[in-house]
Amino acid sequence: MDPGPEELRLHGLRGYDQEPSRNKTLIINSKEPFNAEPPVSILGSSYLTSEDNFYKRNHGPIPILRDPTTYKLVVTGDVPNPVSLSLDFIKSLPKYTAVATLQCAGNRRTEMSMRRKVRGVGWGAAAIGTAAWGGAKLSDVLKHAGVMYYSTATNQGGRHVEIVSCDFCKEENGGPYKASIPLLHATTPEADVLLAYEMNGKVLNRDHGYPLRIVVPGVIGARSVKWIESIVVSKTECQGFFQQKDYKMFPPRVDWDNIDWQSRRPLMDFPVQSVICEPQDGAVVKSGDLVDFYGYAVAGGGRGIERVDISVDNGKTWLEAHRLPKLQTNAYDSHRPDWAWTLWELKSVKVETPCTVIVKAVDTAANVQPADVDEIWNLRGVLNTSWHKIRIHGPPESKL
Amino acid sequence: MDPGPEELRLHGLRGYDQEPSRNKTLIINSKEPFNAEPPVSILGSSYLTSEDNFYKRNHGPIPILRDPTTYKLVVTGDVPNPVSLSLDFIKSLPKYTAVATLQCAGNRRTEMSMRRKVRGVGWGAAAIGTAAWGGAKLSDVLKHAGVMYYSTATNQGGRHVEIVSCDFCKEENGGPYKASIPLLHATTPEADVLLAYEMNGKVLNRDHGYPLRIVVPGVIGARSVKWIESIVVSKTECQGFFQQKDYKMFPPRVDWDNIDWQSRRPLMDFPVQSVICEPQDGAVVKSGDLVDFYGYAVAGGGRGIERVDISVDNGKTWLEAHRLPKLQTNAYDSHRPDWAWTLWELKSVKVETPCTVIVKAVDTAANVQPADVDEIWNLRGVLNTSWHKIRIHGPPESKL
Repeated sequence: MDPGPEELRLHGLRGYDQEPSRNKTLIINSKEPFNAEPPVSILGSSYLTSEDNFYKRNHGPIPILRDPTTYKLVVTGDVPNPVSLSLDFIKSLPKYTAVATLQCAGNRRTEMSMRRKVRGVGWGAAAIGTAAWGGAKLSDVLKHAGVMYYSTATNQGGRHVEIVSCDFCKEENGGPYKASIPLLHATTPEADVLLAYEMNGKVLNRDHGYPLRIVVPGVIGARSVKWIESIVVSKTECQGFFQQKDYKMFPPRVDWDNIDWQSRRPLMDFPVQSVICEPQDGAVVKSGDLVDFYGYAVAGGGRGIERVDISVDNGKTWLEAHRLPKLQTNAYDSHRPDWAWTLWELKSVKVETPCTVIVKAVDTAANVQPADVDEIWNLRGVLNTSWHKIRIHGPPESKL
Repeated sequence: MDPGPEELRLHGLRGYDQEPSRNKTLIINSKEPFNAEPPVSILGSSYLTSEDNFYKRNHGPIPILRDPTTYKLVVTGDVPNPVSLSLDFIKSLPKYTAVATLQCAGNRRTEMSMRRKVRGVGWGAAAIGTAAWGGAKLSDVLKHAGVMYYSTATNQGGRHVEIVSCDFCKEENGGPYKASIPLLHATTPEADVLLAYEMNGKVLNRDHGYPLRIVVPGVIGARSVKWIESIVVSKTECQGFFQQKDYKMFPPRVDWDNIDWQSRRPLMDFPVQSVICEPQDGAVVKSGDLVDFYGYAVAGGGRGIERVDISVDNGKTWLEAHRLPKLQTNAYDSHRPDWAWTLWELKSVKVETPCTVIVKAVDTAANVQPADVDEIWNLRGVLNTSWHKIRIHGPPESKL
């Protein structure tokens, strides 16, 4: 069943000499592996994030597939009917398009680190993006391996679906990046977990997982594995580094000398988040001038955004931002889960500089963001969803 | 199809002379209609809340059913096949038991009102309870009316399921209490929406909805209508008072002179909450003594509780509480939604009195509670989920 690596033409590369070309405006947080985000101002400017501007999060060189006809996805493990599927077969399954936001759990890590040092790749507030992902549903692919919809367990005892990449990952001692989600999540068609081969109507590019990636809407980006080579249904959750020794939420009092990784569950669903994309921290505005603000807000788990509040006086008074129409406007009417961010704007606000501007959002379950980063500080710097603040300065005195 | 009120023997009463007898230890917040909660210390003492101690939230006199054989539940509106179902028929459908917490959206309203006056029945921190609800699934009952599982709309255009009681409700000008949930929610079997006729293994009593109530797990209590007489599938959501002019979340800046009810959606899913049940606010403890703390934590939408933090020094340092085993322990293993609270305890904590003790919880989506009630103050006083604080005093000096 399990074809050897020679038969698979999807290759993880060991060196960085065949990296794809990238947008020069990306802010590079780490070159090898390539981790980069766009200027945050770009995010608020269009509902869908272009492939070029979409943040890149990698753990090794970008794999390469030279001949798509030779590609096989192996679906194996504790399933009734292990299968090996060609790309053409996966494309012949019913195609779904989900507009979904992916957010790295490390988004806004640098801000958290400024309060107290955390470990991990530094990210600004743009390790997030929204795309229209096109592909087959994971639930349909698992059905071909004999696993029914809405299964919590297979007859073979499988309860987790591990998704395995083909890259070379330092943290896995050269093994591939992998992650798992619960079987019930994977087999629930309404969860919209996709094996995506398209991004924004185009063939998925190498940086984003060509030929096939998983997209798990409403869940931290770390579970949306790229360049997938196999899907393994297992009795236990993925034992890989990124599932067991990373991407967990610890309280502020836990540090590297007293950490117990087993005491916490892997993060999945993420909390409500919002960011000011424009103006940016440090902008210069004459006191009394009118300023246009815009940004994004998002919540995990299919929860939508109910409200976005802005303060231009460091929290003394608040205004409500205007939530812009969404691309898939049916989410509210159909009461389906809402997988994508809400862009917001608030125009012509008079500011008295210098001032601190704050944004905070409320999700449809009335969840709120923590006011202060201290409340949620954690050693790995994940899920910094504290109120996003920027400073706006007045012009230098000489220019008054 | 619609039997007249004479045919139905489930009667809403106009007077309060036939109220059921109640536990004398209940704290009565309003006598007519009867609104009461138990002492908060009782809640933490057993996983299931007894019918006697479970909070009572009413809008009129408690209806009465004299002869169960005459009861009919009408399922009508925009459905393929309107039906009228006997209690025996509903009991003949597959029976499910869901351990689910119901929480009034007004829980902890009195605390919010102490900061700034809000309107509504005053509630302490015990307008919440957990029971094992037994009954038929709403999705199965709707199937008998021709509505398939996982429907977002019926062929007749129905998108909402209105549940109608038979009580006399002042706010409805004498009409019955009613509420609606989205059709997709109602027809998703995994959402565990029940037509309950049992509570903790016993026949549902009058105070809690005899003969039949709806239980919508993971959603504010206001949608779990009691004494139901009809289910109406409709194109629009319920237009009743409690769906349209109450139980909505407004920002702190909105007051009665500038409220626009239509600008907000009806609350459903609720945010993470936690409360110290014992000791209670104002307890007296000698400085340096060891104290046992216990309480509850809960989140809406099927999200479980990931962590409970306690501080006995007003937030300077934090300890983690021990989460007690749950009655339905399968929620985590099966990855099914978690509909019920987590009880927690932290024993033998040395306190230096006087001191302020705080509890706050984190849900499985890493959502946190707001630190200060000012952040979420709202004119109706709903969803006070701010950090729960109690004061512990030292003994009077004369006793030292």
